[in-house]
Amino acid sequence: MTAITKEQLASSIDYTLLQPQAGADDIAALCDEAVRYRFYSVCVHTRWIPLAADRLNNSRVNVCSVVSFPHGADSTRIKVSQAHQAIMDGADEIDMVADLAAIEAGDSKYLTTQIQALARVCHSMSPKVTLKVIIESAAFDVDKKMFACAACRQGKADFIKTSTGLHTSGGARIEDVKLMKDAAGDCRVKAAGGIRTAEQALAMIQAGADRIGTSCGVAIMENFQADLD
Amino acid sequence: MTAITKEQLASSIDYTLLQPQAGADDIAALCDEAVRYRFYSVCVHTRWIPLAADRLNNSRVNVCSVVSFPHGADSTRIKVSQAHQAIMDGADEIDMVADLAAIEAGDSKYLTTQIQALARVCHSMSPKVTLKVIIESAAFDVDKKMFACAACRQGKADFIKTSTGLHTSGGARIEDVKLMKDAAGDCRVKAAGGIRTAEQALAMIQAGADRIGTSCGVAIMENFQADLD
Repeated sequence: MTAITKEQLASSIDYTLLQPQAGADDIAALCDEAVRYRFYSVCVHTRWIPLAADRLNNSRVNVCSVVSFPHGADSTRIKVSQAHQAIMDGADEIDMVADLAAIEAGDSKYLTTQIQALARVCHSMSPKVTLKVIIESAAFDVDKKMFACAACRQGKADFIKTSTGLHTSGGARIEDVKLMKDAAGDCRVKAAGGIRTAEQALAMIQAGADRIGTSCGVAIMENFQADLD
Repeated sequence: MTAITKEQLASSIDYTLLQPQAGADDIAALCDEAVRYRFYSVCVHTRWIPLAADRLNNSRVNVCSVVSFPHGADSTRIKVSQAHQAIMDGADEIDMVADLAAIEAGDSKYLTTQIQALARVCHSMSPKVTLKVIIESAAFDVDKKMFACAACRQGKADFIKTSTGLHTSGGARIEDVKLMKDAAGDCRVKAAGGIRTAEQALAMIQAGADRIGTSCGVAIMENFQADLD
């Protein structure tokens, strides 16, 4: 396995809490842990963006939020408006669920146009906001995964993300990360969904993941630390 | 059990398809079945509202859509904007997921203000749009359910709805419908989540439900028919 430092691992983590009943104290704790462990970002629902942005004001930790999560079945207008509002509230990164019906149907025009519209919102900001597109890879066969990756490339997404972590088909899989890395072109790859240990996180990075989404960031770092000791 | 006619049962059903990979043909079939069985509405994701509104143009079947589904953790601004866009696209009814964190925390101001904001959008339309608020009743204890019902009343929701059908705690329960009916004041009650048979649907109506949300509308009607024969 490629050597990776503790700092590199930490700075690849979007530390995530999307549990709908999580409260202000939970979000504050998430932010404080992200600062302490030097994670890349915290990933929270839109209603918590102002709290997280405020809490992280004097840190290097970014605020990531989700759009049309986890179904992805909102209209393009609604997704664009949601992303715009999230950015105005303080989000640095947007993780949008792709339109799964369009992937299923092979509707390239719908899928690509929607990603382009979101990319336009994100990339017209200064500094630019990062757009990640979740393709729920475990739910689709190889051809449909490739099709979805092509749409992400054409639509100018910054990242292709494996999973919401909530789909019945499952979360991030090594083979999907490899496939997505091959098909991603200029897009980076975020592995998310079911990543709970340092071993899993490192395997995803080894397979090509540039970012890791996980609610187990602290456990992963403590785990990694223990392996080094 | 109170006698209920086939027509009464049919006209209480929101015939629902929120599967994220469902395609245009599935939505068209949903609409056609809703017309044939005289259901109250079809309930679809926002991206399908124009298709459903168009398909149901010359029928009495209404178009219902969902806001912040299923987590309910979007900011009030985002929920308001999503509801407004859904209405502009042709929705007659809005099923919004309440802010579960605010129910959990007992934050009456946040919860009520948000419901009021959504009610204002829906009720300022002519004709008025119906607002249903989903409180995910199986996830909360009796006190929190009562608290959520009070916020729905104060916020002027038209309906309190039991469940998204996707929460790990489960869907509609008879005892919750009874409790909600008692606590609902002027609000009506919609039972949804796991209702798959005519027997279940009738038991919910018997317990006080004014509306039934189900993806099994056709099976329920055929089932009811068979019981009468």
